[in-house]
Formats: sequence, structure tokens, C-alpha cells
Amino acid sequence: MNIKEIIAKKRDKQILDKQEIEYFITEYTNGNITDYQAAALIMAIYINGMNYEETKNLTLAMANSGQILDLHDISDTIIDKHSSGGVGDKITLIVMPIIASLGIPVAKMSGRGLGITGGTIDKLESIPGYRTDIDLEEFKKNIKEIGISLIGQTKDLAPADKKIYALRDLISCTESIPLIASSIMSKKIAAGANKIVLEVTCGKGAFMKTRKQAEELSKVMSEIGKLAGIETVCVITNMEQPIGKSVGNSLEVEEAVRALKGEMEEDVKEVVLEISAQIIKLAGISCDLEKNKQMALEQIHNGSAYNKFVELIKRQYGDVTYLSNIPKAKYKLEVLSTKKGYVTELDAEKIGKTALLLGAGRMKKEDTIDHTSRNSFRKEDRR
Amino acid sequence: MNIKEIIAKKRDKQILDKQEIEYFITEYTNGNITDYQAAALIMAIYINGMNYEETKNLTLAMANSGQILDLHDISDTIIDKHSSGGVGDKITLIVMPIIASLGIPVAKMSGRGLGITGGTIDKLESIPGYRTDIDLEEFKKNIKEIGISLIGQTKDLAPADKKIYALRDLISCTESIPLIASSIMSKKIAAGANKIVLEVTCGKGAFMKTRKQAEELSKVMSEIGKLAGIETVCVITNMEQPIGKSVGNSLEVEEAVRALKGEMEEDVKEVVLEISAQIIKLAGISCDLEKNKQMALEQIHNGSAYNKFVELIKRQYGDVTYLSNIPKAKYKLEVLSTKKGYVTELDAEKIGKTALLLGAGRMKKEDTIDHTSRNSFRKEDRR
Repeated sequence: MNIKEIIAKKRDKQILDKQEIEYFITEYTNGNITDYQAAALIMAIYINGMNYEETKNLTLAMANSGQILDLHDISDTIIDKHSSGGVGDKITLIVMPIIASLGIPVAKMSGRGLGITGGTIDKLESIPGYRTDIDLEEFKKNIKEIGISLIGQTKDLAPADKKIYALRDLISCTESIPLIASSIMSKKIAAGANKIVLEVTCGKGAFMKTRKQAEELSKVMSEIGKLAGIETVCVITNMEQPIGKSVGNSLEVEEAVRALKGEMEEDVKEVVLEISAQIIKLAGISCDLEKNKQMALEQIHNGSAYNKFVELIKRQYGDVTYLSNIPKAKYKLEVLSTKKGYVTELDAEKIGKTALLLGAGRMKKEDTIDHTSRNSFRKEDRR
Repeated sequence: MNIKEIIAKKRDKQILDKQEIEYFITEYTNGNITDYQAAALIMAIYINGMNYEETKNLTLAMANSGQILDLHDISDTIIDKHSSGGVGDKITLIVMPIIASLGIPVAKMSGRGLGITGGTIDKLESIPGYRTDIDLEEFKKNIKEIGISLIGQTKDLAPADKKIYALRDLISCTESIPLIASSIMSKKIAAGANKIVLEVTCGKGAFMKTRKQAEELSKVMSEIGKLAGIETVCVITNMEQPIGKSVGNSLEVEEAVRALKGEMEEDVKEVVLEISAQIIKLAGISCDLEKNKQMALEQIHNGSAYNKFVELIKRQYGDVTYLSNIPKAKYKLEVLSTKKGYVTELDAEKIGKTALLLGAGRMKKEDTIDHTSRNSFRKEDRR
């Protein structure tokens, strides 16, 4: 087998077989295939596509390129939740404590933000002291003892994905459905999940700009899941407008805290309950989604979800006093409407870009974030 | 302007403008664009194509990436001849002395062989002492004084083409018409030619396997020539079978010597006279191709062409005594037909590969050649 033949096949719109895909992933991870050869193949995949079988093989090869986390000693059912990213997307911060408070183990590795989309890890790191880089032993220990741990991706998991993801950004091959799907799914599989709820965001503030693209990505991920023996549920959510009322790391933590205390924006609530209900269903607790939503809401009302969140922050060395005293930005610019009326629309992309320019995100993977992240955006009514 | 946007445009099958193409070529030559970004763009060009205008802009940008040889002090008309490569292709070695002997200046930089196709420079280097690497001053001096010089490509000419050519080989992007056309034409333009005769080989032993591909390449190169203000004539020649009766560097020199002395195979003769006639026409001597063929033949019969060849070899430090005493291979394997009859076909690709395995060619650009090149193939009749 040789990489030039593999590139030529995909260049000519042929189907790559399992061995060819595994060869590419293994040898690229080992450094035996150069970046320029990988770039040529990735561009050919971007333009000529991949079928479900190829995408599944790519996913599994990437998952197997590093360590696969074995969480069977914690539970037979490890559920992961993933969002394809959005503006003001603090859903994970709210859903995960709800789920853990119900006794369903939450073992979650989250990503960082890129471009206009925020990342859960960046949000958590805005809490002073919170460590997203604890080792896997401590991660597992936390899940066993308090039922939840939320960390960043370790470099041992799916290293092929890490290399390909970075390369894709530099060669304008980000928005490819087989590449996005395999990247997401490989990380989830490597992180030990066997059931996955995927939130596929859709609209101006998301990678998938149209409903059609979002449906296609959902379909591909469900199919990969099926072929890989992983139960996968996709929920398409609207990202035309920012979700909730604030964008920016510490402001979103603040909003999540308020939500966990019962004060939730309607749009946030809808997504939180839907995702929670799906996870509860996957966990085998109940198939009745409406009942599951009530169950989730009850965990908020009785305080268990918030308590679990505080427990998590404390366990991972975060300063819990910060949660009730999140500092405000030093400078503030109010943009008031010059006319009477209602704001009917907010452009998620423009607001995401504004927050990015204010220092809340990163343009390139290497960029650092202003972790105080008080540079952010908040929607407020003034009636 | 940035390379990611340029890659994205071609990825989406859009047309690149002049500035974008120039930016890519300049910055890639300077090392400011990485090999992997160039690889992604080249793959996108391979798959999505380029129109004539884009191909012309690519050609001129590559030609301008280094020094452009100015040969105006030698003549206003600098004619170059190029072959897209074949098996047993010794046409240049025969045509160029004919042309020079007619007083038309021959300033030729030739390539090396790659894959099954041989290269004029490798053939000349099989003559002991012959220097293909004399400097440009000496090159020009030879043209002025004896009307001919034949050297290898200097690294100062079209360096962008050199980088892209090497990269294309490693990422399976060799057989792309806009990339082949721009590579050939940029080198000819950089080498100072303003009129070009292109022999587009076609068949099993050539890069263009079908008549249709050869016609397309001819059309593209003629169009680029027109847009770039360079008079270009294409001659499509058959490369289903090896041309002439021998394949391999020193055997081909021997065959060229015999041809220049008047003993020419019919297939070689047809191509030699056609190309010579076209060059004589481009030089403005006569538009009558039949008359031009007679003129070329006369230069062989009166000995001027052979004398010019000897003068060239001597001037470039080659051992002329070698020409009448080319050593034979130490080992010889005769493949005799088991039946009576005529050989009706020889597969150029298979014979090219055999010669390659025997050491007459190179698989990769870095490979070295057995310059004695007695490892080769000869067709002989035994009646």
C-alpha cells in the first residue's frame, strides 16, 4: 500500500477501503506520511466526499490512533453529549449537572472554542482555580465518587484527529461533513462513550449554516454511530440567534449558574430539557420524553443540579465563592435602540465576531484567551 | 489576500484572478506558503480545473518566479522545441543539429527523464565529458559562436515550477492538463523562447494516454501561448510504441548518430522532418512544410547536421571519439519469437518500464542514473 495510490483513488472519486484508511491514519499519526500528502488527500475528500462506510472507517481509525478510555468499571452505559458549537452556547454547563444529579455518570471531555463558537473548557477555565487538565486517574476517581467530571481533551486520545483537525483549519477544509462527523465521533468513541447525544447547531452562529446541512451532518453521524455500534441521537437546534442572553466565558458561567438556580431563558430551557430528556432516555431510565423533561426540571427546582455543579467545581479545584460574585467588566458600552419597539432578531455570527474581537475567543488554535473573559456581550431589556 | 481564501475559492470551483495566482506563486517560492497549503490548492486545481486565463496567469507567474533569460542580443527569434516525453524519444538530438546547421539559433534547456519517459539531458550525459551544467554566459557564447547549445535547466529559471513539479509527483497530481501545460510553458518562457514547437506525445508510452487528452493539452498550450503572446505550434505524435529501434540513453545516442548520418528509422524520420519543418516555418524561412522537410533532409545528406552535432559535443567538453565507438552492454538477452511472422506491436509502456528497471531511468527525481546506460533495449529484425 502506498499513500500516492490512496490519494489518486480519492482524487478520482473512488471509494477507499478500510485498510487504506487505516494505513493513512496510522502512518500519518506516526509521521511517515507528510503533511502535504495528508493535505492533498483531505482536499480530495472534501471535494469528492466519502460514503458512510468510509466515514465510519475513518472515525474508528482515528479513535484507535491513540488510547481508548475504558470506563466499564464505572458503568456499562457511558453517555456523552456533544454540541457542534454555537454563540452563547452554555447548554453543557447546565445539562451535565442535571444528569449527574440523577445518578447517571457524566464523563465528559470538552473542546475549546474556535472562531465564533465558544468552548465549554474555556468557560470552565474562567472560574479561578478550576483544572481542566487533571489526569485520567483523577478524572475516573471523580466520576466514581461524585458522578461527574468535566475535563479538556488529553493528547493521548485520538491524536490523528488532533493532527487532521489542525491541518484542516490551515487548508480551508473545515466545513466537510465526513470530516466534521468523523472528528466528533472519533473523540467521543476514544473517550469511552457508547451512547451519544449530539446537538447539531444550525444557523448563522454555527458551522452548519442551513437546515439541510445540519440534517445531513445528523444523518451521517447517526449512520456512523449505527455502523460503529454506538447508539446515537441527534438534536438539531437553532443557532440563527445567540442562545440565552449572554456571550463570553464568565458571563455564560454566570448565566449557567442562574439557570441551575431556576432562572432560565426560554430558548435555553427548551434545549436544556430536550437534551436532558434524550440522555435520560438513552440511560434506560424512561422512554417518555415529556416525563424526562419534568424529571430534569425537578432537579433544578429541588437544588440538586446546582449542588452537583458546585460539587464539581470544588472537586476540580475551582473557587466556588466566585460563582456568587462574578466580576463585571470594567468598561461597558450600551447600545440603545433609537426607536421604540422590540428587538426581533440578533445576528449570531456578528455577535460571535464581536465577542471574539473583545477577547472572548480565539481566531487560531494557538491563540490564548482572556480568561477573566469579562470582554463579552449581554442582551438586556430596558422597557 | 490570504492563502486560505485562495484555497477555498478553487475548492469551490471558482475562478482565481491574476493577483491571487501571483500571490500564491510568489509566496510559495519564498517559503511563506507551506507545502501542505500548496498541496491542498494543487489538488483542488487538479479536481476542479482551471480555465485558459487562469492557466496563462499561472504560467506567467511561474516563469516570472525567477530569472527570465534575455536572448535578444542573439536573435529576435528564439525558437524552442519541447516534447511531452516518450519511450525511445531521441528526436531532439536529431532535430536540433539540423536546425542549427540551417543558421537558426538553438538555445535549448532540456529536462531529465521521469518514470518511463527518457530525458534529453540524461542521454547527452551518457557521452563522457559532456557538460549539461555550463553557466548561462557560456551557454549564450556557444549559441553566438556555433549557433547551438543544449544544457539542463538551471535552478534560477522558474523556481516555482521546480517546487510545484516535485510536489505534484508526491501527491499524485502529475496528470493535470493545466498543471502540465503551465509547467512546460513557464520553463520555455523563462528560457527566453518567443516561438515554441511542442511535440505532444500520445499513447501507452506517454503521459497523455489518449488522443483526446493529447488534443486537449495541445489546445491549452496553444491558448496559453496566444494569451502570453508566444507563437506556439503543437504536433501530436504517436507513442503507443517506442519510437525508433532502441530505448536507453547510450543506445539512443547511437541511434541519433546513425540518423544524423542518414540512416533513419521510418517512424523517427517522419517526426524529425515534421518538427524540423515546423521550426523552419516559425523561423520565417519558408511556409511550405514539404519544402522545409526537404531542406531538413538535405542538411542530413550533406553532412551539415552531423557536423553540427559533433561541434556541439566538442564545445561542451564531450568526448567525440565516443560517438563512433559506443560500448555494448556486457550482458545481452535475446528474446526470439517462437513462431514465424512479424512483430506488429510493441507496448511502449512495458518496454519503458523494462528499460527503467534495467537502470536507464529514474522512478523518483532524486534517483541517479547509470550513465553508461548500456542497460537498455533494442529491437532487431532476424529474418
